[in-house]
Amino acid sequence: MTRVGIIGASGYAAADLMRLLVAHPEARIVALADLPEKCGPLSRLFPQFAGRLDIRVIPADVPSLAEACDVVFLALPHTASMTYAGPLLEAGARVIDFSADYRLKTPGLYETVYGTPPDEANLPEAVYGLPELYRDLIRPARLIANPGCYPTSAILGLAPLVREGLVAPNDIIIDAKSGVSGAGRTPKLLTHYPECNESLQAYAVGTHRHQPEIAEQLALLAKTAVDVLFVPHLVPMDRGIESTIYAKPLQDLTPGRLADLYHAAYDAEPFVVVRDEPPATKHIAGTNYIHIYPTLAAGRVVTSAVVDNLTKGAAGQALQNMNLMFGYDETAGLK
Amino acid sequence: MTRVGIIGASGYAAADLMRLLVAHPEARIVALADLPEKCGPLSRLFPQFAGRLDIRVIPADVPSLAEACDVVFLALPHTASMTYAGPLLEAGARVIDFSADYRLKTPGLYETVYGTPPDEANLPEAVYGLPELYRDLIRPARLIANPGCYPTSAILGLAPLVREGLVAPNDIIIDAKSGVSGAGRTPKLLTHYPECNESLQAYAVGTHRHQPEIAEQLALLAKTAVDVLFVPHLVPMDRGIESTIYAKPLQDLTPGRLADLYHAAYDAEPFVVVRDEPPATKHIAGTNYIHIYPTLAAGRVVTSAVVDNLTKGAAGQALQNMNLMFGYDETAGLK
Amino acid sequence: MTRVGIIGASGYAAADLMRLLVAHPEARIVALADLPEKCGPLSRLFPQFAGRLDIRVIPADVPSLAEACDVVFLALPHTASMTYAGPLLEAGARVIDFSADYRLKTPGLYETVYGTPPDEANLPEAVYGLPELYRDLIRPARLIANPGCYPTSAILGLAPLVREGLVAPNDIIIDAKSGVSGAGRTPKLLTHYPECNESLQAYAVGTHRHQPEIAEQLALLAKTAVDVLFVPHLVPMDRGIESTIYAKPLQDLTPGRLADLYHAAYDAEPFVVVRDEPPATKHIAGTNYIHIYPTLAAGRVVTSAVVDNLTKGAAGQALQNMNLMFGYDETAGLK
Amino acid sequence: MTRVGIIGASGYAAADLMRLLVAHPEARIVALADLPEKCGPLSRLFPQFAGRLDIRVIPADVPSLAEACDVVFLALPHTASMTYAGPLLEAGARVIDFSADYRLKTPGLYETVYGTPPDEANLPEAVYGLPELYRDLIRPARLIANPGCYPTSAILGLAPLVREGLVAPNDIIIDAKSGVSGAGRTPKLLTHYPECNESLQAYAVGTHRHQPEIAEQLALLAKTAVDVLFVPHLVPMDRGIESTIYAKPLQDLTPGRLADLYHAAYDAEPFVVVRDEPPATKHIAGTNYIHIYPTLAAGRVVTSAVVDNLTKGAAGQALQNMNLMFGYDETAGLK
Repeated sequence: MTRVGIIGASGYAAADLMRLLVAHPEARIVALADLPEKCGPLSRLFPQFAGRLDIRVIPADVPSLAEACDVVFLALPHTASMTYAGPLLEAGARVIDFSADYRLKTPGLYETVYGTPPDEANLPEAVYGLPELYRDLIRPARLIANPGCYPTSAILGLAPLVREGLVAPNDIIIDAKSGVSGAGRTPKLLTHYPECNESLQAYAVGTHRHQPEIAEQLALLAKTAVDVLFVPHLVPMDRGIESTIYAKPLQDLTPGRLADLYHAAYDAEPFVVVRDEPPATKHIAGTNYIHIYPTLAAGRVVTSAVVDNLTKGAAGQALQNMNLMFGYDETAGLK
Repeated sequence: MTRVGIIGASGYAAADLMRLLVAHPEARIVALADLPEKCGPLSRLFPQFAGRLDIRVIPADVPSLAEACDVVFLALPHTASMTYAGPLLEAGARVIDFSADYRLKTPGLYETVYGTPPDEANLPEAVYGLPELYRDLIRPARLIANPGCYPTSAILGLAPLVREGLVAPNDIIIDAKSGVSGAGRTPKLLTHYPECNESLQAYAVGTHRHQPEIAEQLALLAKTAVDVLFVPHLVPMDRGIESTIYAKPLQDLTPGRLADLYHAAYDAEPFVVVRDEPPATKHIAGTNYIHIYPTLAAGRVVTSAVVDNLTKGAAGQALQNMNLMFGYDETAGLK
Repeated sequence: MTRVGIIGASGYAAADLMRLLVAHPEARIVALADLPEKCGPLSRLFPQFAGRLDIRVIPADVPSLAEACDVVFLALPHTASMTYAGPLLEAGARVIDFSADYRLKTPGLYETVYGTPPDEANLPEAVYGLPELYRDLIRPARLIANPGCYPTSAILGLAPLVREGLVAPNDIIIDAKSGVSGAGRTPKLLTHYPECNESLQAYAVGTHRHQPEIAEQLALLAKTAVDVLFVPHLVPMDRGIESTIYAKPLQDLTPGRLADLYHAAYDAEPFVVVRDEPPATKHIAGTNYIHIYPTLAAGRVVTSAVVDNLTKGAAGQALQNMNLMFGYDETAGLK
Repeated sequence: MTRVGIIGASGYAAADLMRLLVAHPEARIVALADLPEKCGPLSRLFPQFAGRLDIRVIPADVPSLAEACDVVFLALPHTASMTYAGPLLEAGARVIDFSADYRLKTPGLYETVYGTPPDEANLPEAVYGLPELYRDLIRPARLIANPGCYPTSAILGLAPLVREGLVAPNDIIIDAKSGVSGAGRTPKLLTHYPECNESLQAYAVGTHRHQPEIAEQLALLAKTAVDVLFVPHLVPMDRGIESTIYAKPLQDLTPGRLADLYHAAYDAEPFVVVRDEPPATKHIAGTNYIHIYPTLAAGRVVTSAVVDNLTKGAAGQALQNMNLMFGYDETAGLK
């Protein structure tokens, strides 16, 4: 039985993690922590846990968390995570971080994108927690940088092509659409119901912080620099991301070869389904699955990939990582 | 006072046209027609007109419609329109057609896309009813091919660039997102509420019938062949289209020059607003406006254009055309 | 031409009023005012007015507003309105107030419900602006208390029964459901999209401030005390209120007599439609109409009434009042 | 390991049952059956099961189903169920029926409500599958009549009051609101997205078939005849029912005593949570929980009860029944 703690218990990704953990056969939530003003019975923060998870949210204290927990999930914003990760590791806990703090390895990139220097001491040992790419590194890891929601869909949607050098590395466009929970739980005008309901809009065109994360990961696969243009959109639904990805083939691809490529890459993966028609976000809502549909159109490879931003895009993937780290069936609590 | 008839009174575009016409200072609905099983009081088809437009829907009879009406709107599916347009013109009415039947002028293209030969007799005189491009041709026209909803957003979103030859004509990607009313009023599984609510999906990747319509219109502007890759998506909202358009500049463009180009093209247009941040579909819902945001990112021009698929994308634009044809203020009934 | 000012330009009801006023044939918006931090171009507050209503929001200054305007709409929260109404009246403007400040006439009731004493000086001359009941008092009024959104649906839904003494005055239940715009434009957790989307809940059971407003108005109609139990619910949609009203008949009513009663009461009204099946809020969305369906079931009169909370429930009704006050066609700008 | 079959695999309740069963530790789906035109890979009917439940839907054959399965769930419309239940029982399978076919025990009532005579042969042994009321009868049962979705919320919301005779049995009003999945998966205009989105309406006022089901069950608890007025409403969300229930106390009740009554009735129940504020349907979406909030207002007891119509209102409750019937932990697969 793995003893689990969560710091940042008041957000949506944390709530999704709790939803999954209450059904996990081998893990038990032993500590939930958050800012003092969020502390108290969990059911005050999230009434859906009334009667299901009767536990109090407490202030985060590293020594007691490290003693009580085998693993601590950090469901915190960037820069907040790095204040906890190092001390927790030092005190003997393993750490799975939902923020961007340990994702970017290119020197200087984190500071460029997030405006402060990274945690240089612990960054080197952090593993990018995308099991489909880094399963063997994840197993022994002490510190996991859980991937961003958009990057999960984009990287897995492109990996088979990029790894084989089949598409131009400087001509990749990712047009992504996300449900509103991706914007977090803090009320603001953009996500006030009468503003974003019945509406769709682009935002952060070419400037979103997930763009460098995607590019860095694809470059590692391509073994060459990769440029991506990433344009996210806000969609009136709770959960789900759809990324439509446009890439330029460098050689003749047939529909059959394209399908074979994706099936070869993913048919052994427990959470990746290669589809022969465009998937809907509803097909994966609440699950840890990613559905990918690759096709050819007008001289481009067009790939549509869907994930639940809170599950495969955050909490589910984090749990998949935990399963690998603690030697459980990778799908435990996720089927 | 212009006397107006509508054939195909049971669909959403027709309903939106009625909504606009009841407030139009110079037009009066004198006849609504549809299939026999749809006939009866309008309020049985659309309860929102109870007490506002007390009129009966009757079977379509060309001679009596032509006598009663100065203009007849055909809110019909493709191939159905062409059975009415010719006879109505012959009988002296002017016709504004919502279908694709008179939109494609390239020889053979209509048949390739829609599977039957077009109405060769009347096709030559049809004018593509996009006032921002063809205002002078629309005024005297007897037969208007009202543009498709997606093409309205895509063509106006690209026109300033394409007309000036500023972008590569063979490297244009249009990633479009539409509310569900664009799929029509006939119930089917795809648009059954529990299927498409809380969900987004791509469809008809590179094969949608609006792709050749967009390409043909852009080619007329570019004075050269234009290839577009068009990928539509279904979004859980009633109304609204957002098109994010990716084009490759052929020369150095600065943000300032790009903005100037769009302002020069559109500032005199009554229904086009050039924005300096990405517009939301809610900003134009229920109106005849199109909001366009052009920007530069990662070596591309990226343009986001939003229209209401039923209004600027159908009924509103049709009314704008009617205003031009009958010498009214172009914005009558549309502000 | 009536010169119109609005104080409180940043809220949803104000925006709906502007939407209606831009199409009004006899009124012109000459001044929009709000708190200093909301001032600036209107299109910064509401991008939907870009290109349609190019006006700046300015700080509220009573003397200049009174000079510039024939009528000032106060789209303000309760207690804020009363700081403006008196001075504006004194300076010669007529006032239509959206808040509750001038609605309650029973001595002591306002203070009981809202916690501060009312504006005793001006309260006596205020007219409750429900045209279907008080048309003749509204015409000459200088100060209108525009009814609440819930009360509009409840009072008109019950008036024919209560006026005739046909139902027990102490056994009335109103189960109401409202779209989220009714909660205003200030972001909070309750109306944060991922919280209230895909969810419905009751709130303020028997304690909502509209309950005494409804009871007072019904008592005036009944000429006896009336008790109501009012239970509102929050519904995942932008606009619309449905009130299902349960009343106990005091004598035998037949379906036919019930329908006759409602038709007799409302058929001459321009905005009230008596329906013979339950209306949907969509049938009146964006309009000034109220649809009412009265029926008998299990020994009760059950009435379903729907209004758009922002239009007939606020801005549209306010404009209907303005039309009456300035001698215009009551439906001007509202059809 | 219990071997499970489902007849009627193409509907929403069946899909929810499959979602739950794939995570059940002691049950395994061995057969899915439906009409011939629905047969084929399950993922063609429900793409969300691609990669999760790779099974074919086959035509329903009673002998082979009875041999392969320990229990068969009938996710069928009324009257269809009764053609399968008897033969399955005879062949040795136990049956849990989602339809109304075995719910009504009052002689003649089924025929009055559903228009055909019931299955008199098997009706006597059917047990109404509401575990909170009939746990001991459910355990040994061979045939379960799984309760309706609305009745589950209404009966559990009222049981503590009615059982103790604390409220007038002839003055109960249930104003219920349901998400659209309750209307089934067959496309029709009422549930076409652009019709029911952004809209709420009452329907079947006092005539819904769940009204007699609720009344019969309450009468069994009250040991006297009970009249209810039941008014359902259609709400723009996928899942969830909220029932606001109005009852007349027969004696003085205090808030404290009311809360005590509900806590005493339900605190030992694994899926019933007594709340001290109105619950939202989102709090129980996708779960087998019912949240109930009882309060006093204006001389009435007002109770708000929320369930997921597909889970506690159908598939989850059915699984809870199966757990009881086969001796598993009642919450297996449901936490």
